[in-house]
Amino acid sequence: MPEKIYVFDTTLRDGEQSAGVAFTPEEKLEIARQLDRLGVDIIEAGFPCSTPGDLEAVQTIAREVRRPTIAALARAVASDIDTAWEAVKEAAEPRIHVFINSSDIQMAHQLGKDREQVLTQAEAMVRHAAKYTSNVEFSPMDATRADPRFIFQIVERCIDAGATTINIPDSVGYAIPEELGGLFRAIFEHVPNIHKCRVSFHGQNDLGMCTANTLTAIQNGARQVELTINGIGERAGNTSLEEVVMAIKTRKDFLPFYTDINTREIWPASKMVERYSGIQVQWNKAVVGKNAFRHASGIHQDGILKLRETWEIMDPTEIGMPRENAEETLVLGKLSGRHAFKIHMARLGYQLNENQLAKAFAQFKELADKKIEVDNRDLIAIVNDNLGGIDLGKWQLENVQVTTGDHITPTATVTLTGPEGTRTEVAMGTGPVNAIYKAINAIAGVDARLDEYLVKAVTENADAQGEVTVRIEEGTRTWTGRASDTDVIVASAKAYIAAINRMAAVGG
Amino acid sequence: MPEKIYVFDTTLRDGEQSAGVAFTPEEKLEIARQLDRLGVDIIEAGFPCSTPGDLEAVQTIAREVRRPTIAALARAVASDIDTAWEAVKEAAEPRIHVFINSSDIQMAHQLGKDREQVLTQAEAMVRHAAKYTSNVEFSPMDATRADPRFIFQIVERCIDAGATTINIPDSVGYAIPEELGGLFRAIFEHVPNIHKCRVSFHGQNDLGMCTANTLTAIQNGARQVELTINGIGERAGNTSLEEVVMAIKTRKDFLPFYTDINTREIWPASKMVERYSGIQVQWNKAVVGKNAFRHASGIHQDGILKLRETWEIMDPTEIGMPRENAEETLVLGKLSGRHAFKIHMARLGYQLNENQLAKAFAQFKELADKKIEVDNRDLIAIVNDNLGGIDLGKWQLENVQVTTGDHITPTATVTLTGPEGTRTEVAMGTGPVNAIYKAINAIAGVDARLDEYLVKAVTENADAQGEVTVRIEEGTRTWTGRASDTDVIVASAKAYIAAINRMAAVGG
Repeated sequence: MPEKIYVFDTTLRDGEQSAGVAFTPEEKLEIARQLDRLGVDIIEAGFPCSTPGDLEAVQTIAREVRRPTIAALARAVASDIDTAWEAVKEAAEPRIHVFINSSDIQMAHQLGKDREQVLTQAEAMVRHAAKYTSNVEFSPMDATRADPRFIFQIVERCIDAGATTINIPDSVGYAIPEELGGLFRAIFEHVPNIHKCRVSFHGQNDLGMCTANTLTAIQNGARQVELTINGIGERAGNTSLEEVVMAIKTRKDFLPFYTDINTREIWPASKMVERYSGIQVQWNKAVVGKNAFRHASGIHQDGILKLRETWEIMDPTEIGMPRENAEETLVLGKLSGRHAFKIHMARLGYQLNENQLAKAFAQFKELADKKIEVDNRDLIAIVNDNLGGIDLGKWQLENVQVTTGDHITPTATVTLTGPEGTRTEVAMGTGPVNAIYKAINAIAGVDARLDEYLVKAVTENADAQGEVTVRIEEGTRTWTGRASDTDVIVASAKAYIAAINRMAAVGG
Repeated sequence: MPEKIYVFDTTLRDGEQSAGVAFTPEEKLEIARQLDRLGVDIIEAGFPCSTPGDLEAVQTIAREVRRPTIAALARAVASDIDTAWEAVKEAAEPRIHVFINSSDIQMAHQLGKDREQVLTQAEAMVRHAAKYTSNVEFSPMDATRADPRFIFQIVERCIDAGATTINIPDSVGYAIPEELGGLFRAIFEHVPNIHKCRVSFHGQNDLGMCTANTLTAIQNGARQVELTINGIGERAGNTSLEEVVMAIKTRKDFLPFYTDINTREIWPASKMVERYSGIQVQWNKAVVGKNAFRHASGIHQDGILKLRETWEIMDPTEIGMPRENAEETLVLGKLSGRHAFKIHMARLGYQLNENQLAKAFAQFKELADKKIEVDNRDLIAIVNDNLGGIDLGKWQLENVQVTTGDHITPTATVTLTGPEGTRTEVAMGTGPVNAIYKAINAIAGVDARLDEYLVKAVTENADAQGEVTVRIEEGTRTWTGRASDTDVIVASAKAYIAAINRMAAVGG
């Protein structure tokens, strides 16, 4: 029978401890609701003594989110514990999480206390927390750098004092799996009352190993794991919830465990935390990175087209990735093979015969050597070259002129040449870019709405180029355009025209 | 005696296989030179049969980068191997790397061949490569999902055929450490001629475990490891060079191994690959992420200020992080404590007495509840409120007016009020932003150079705001400024003035 692993999510506490991250109380509540949908067992909602705002945020979550246990962090200090209880006492199932330094280096240099003093303080404070609730977690901080004999001692005393969960934190991300497995086995061997509590592991990712450490802890007796969405957290972050959950699920042949996580809520949770934290998930992040399910090499693409499982161990829809994204996992580029190219063209509506395919594929490979990702517009242009019939330059910019400032109304004059000749329009806007886009819409007779506008890495030195990317939408469809110029205003006009032309070519 | 681990870098081959990445030949050469400085033993420079451009790029690297071994990848197909040899034959030490599918699922569904056919083909093609060079690497692709008995067989046959390096790839990122350790031990036990070659491991990060898998492989006999800078690569990427190298170095107490990597070249290598690949390193990336050495919580900051080793297991300068960055690792935010606040103020030149500190700290905590990162400007404003005396608004924008377009010279007229009254200047530029900044420089009498300019997430809907961030430098110092406006041109002016004011206040 597989055993359940309890998921303790600390996105709102250790995740918020990332440099550069501070959630608003509204964001914290919204994330807590998503964690509830995701099915986590415990939400560590904050560190209430840190600011009055955090205390309030935890109280709100405790009142509003009723299924999971709501935990609050506290130093092993009476006033912290009192504040933590204030924060969670209205939760359906409240927990107080008490911690203290346990390694010699931290006890001596940070606390200025000896082992005996720390033992006494930890025991007294767990006892203090246990007066409020029977749900008390205790963490000996920096346990993996501590003397194991001291860990056995402090854990035993804190269980006797009322701790019902014992968490072993690798606070500085120092452990490696083999060593950590040994520590967990030793704890079960040397702490006589260990079976009275649930044992937990909390990893940090400083050496890139906390997912593996977490699995090792589970294999050696941990039944609670402390995780965050996208692995955010202090320094290199915490253990990624999505990695641990999907590893347990994907490798159930080897790991006789399960979690209660609804994996289809992983993708929405990842996007929400990315947005609110401002910490972008890198493309090559496991499970939730933009590239996690994208195949660039011809060999992999060929395999996927024959049988998905040849190259995928997880199904992207299983983590809740929207089907559109999941279907766009074959990326055409210099390493793509003829097989993927042919399938891709067929999806765009072009059934090529062998001769056409050979010519178009050769031209595609030549282009791919120069360009990173070959997009549909490029492909249509290639087919166009080979088969005739599609126009990607319906509208040409003849002239753009702008006057703007903080005390005048931004105005733009734009001249375009199109199928019916040259036309000029003038428009006002909230800014010069808005004015230009209104003038272009008027000339082209479209009703496009600007969905995204980005200027990338423009350094306006003598010969630097500003690159503008726009995404426009009309109805439910979107198109992108990109252009560079030393003048950001001119680049903005060109990028928008590129998008309008693509809309006209691919079908608007 | 610690044993050497050979570092095989595949940033230019598997790293380039990331969706969205294609290096130019110049970029490939520049990265190869940096890998040389970094001290890697083998550079896998490309997959020459994929495009003619890649063949040429590998040839150039083989001619220009003379210390490391230069490897080229080839399918177990004669024409691929011939092309690979064409690519590397001029290298000081060339290597051909031959691979073929080895799991039943990939052999049946991708190759459409049975075990016997694959064995025969692999053996023949390794023999073909060995005619060119004695430095041949063989990889049975998807080895971790293959029948181990087939791996023993194919490895033994390929060593007899002339392979001098045997690489065991976890091609779909499926392995977990305990299991992988068993596979390596079994290979050493069941392949009688295994000691004639060097054994290697290649991990993929689909379940977030390839760094731990790589260390496990080393602990069980691998002496070559295949890595990429920043862990870029197909899907969730390859094993991060920086993580494996720093784990071996940091945990030398537990791991009796070393590499020849000059760790101070890690940071420059990471920045170069980030720039050329366009794949941003996430803030919480181990070792090279922006936050990897930044401490946000009050408890951690307090510890670091008392003794660095209480919370850091690596020294950021050890990986070549510039000292300025390394010194800015204490980030003031809502979780920061009084100790870090006091030190930070002292660094800014303010010695606060207890009373001043108490008032300023309370105001800082209030601000921190609202704002993610409190920067020096905010701190100076707080001190200013409490102590008086510093002016952050030396220059005020009265008026900005711009005319620009693609057929006219961008011109800007700017009016500022300063300590000596109101002044107006006009300037031309390469674009409107450049023109504005020249006019402001003329009024303020500064010689600032724009170092970075970013427009973030502007959607020019009716009430959307564009946020402009600028970084300016004068001499060796830099200042930043930020501003929002519905008009990107006005926001650009305001952001630059904010930076100029900060320069005037903090000392220029």
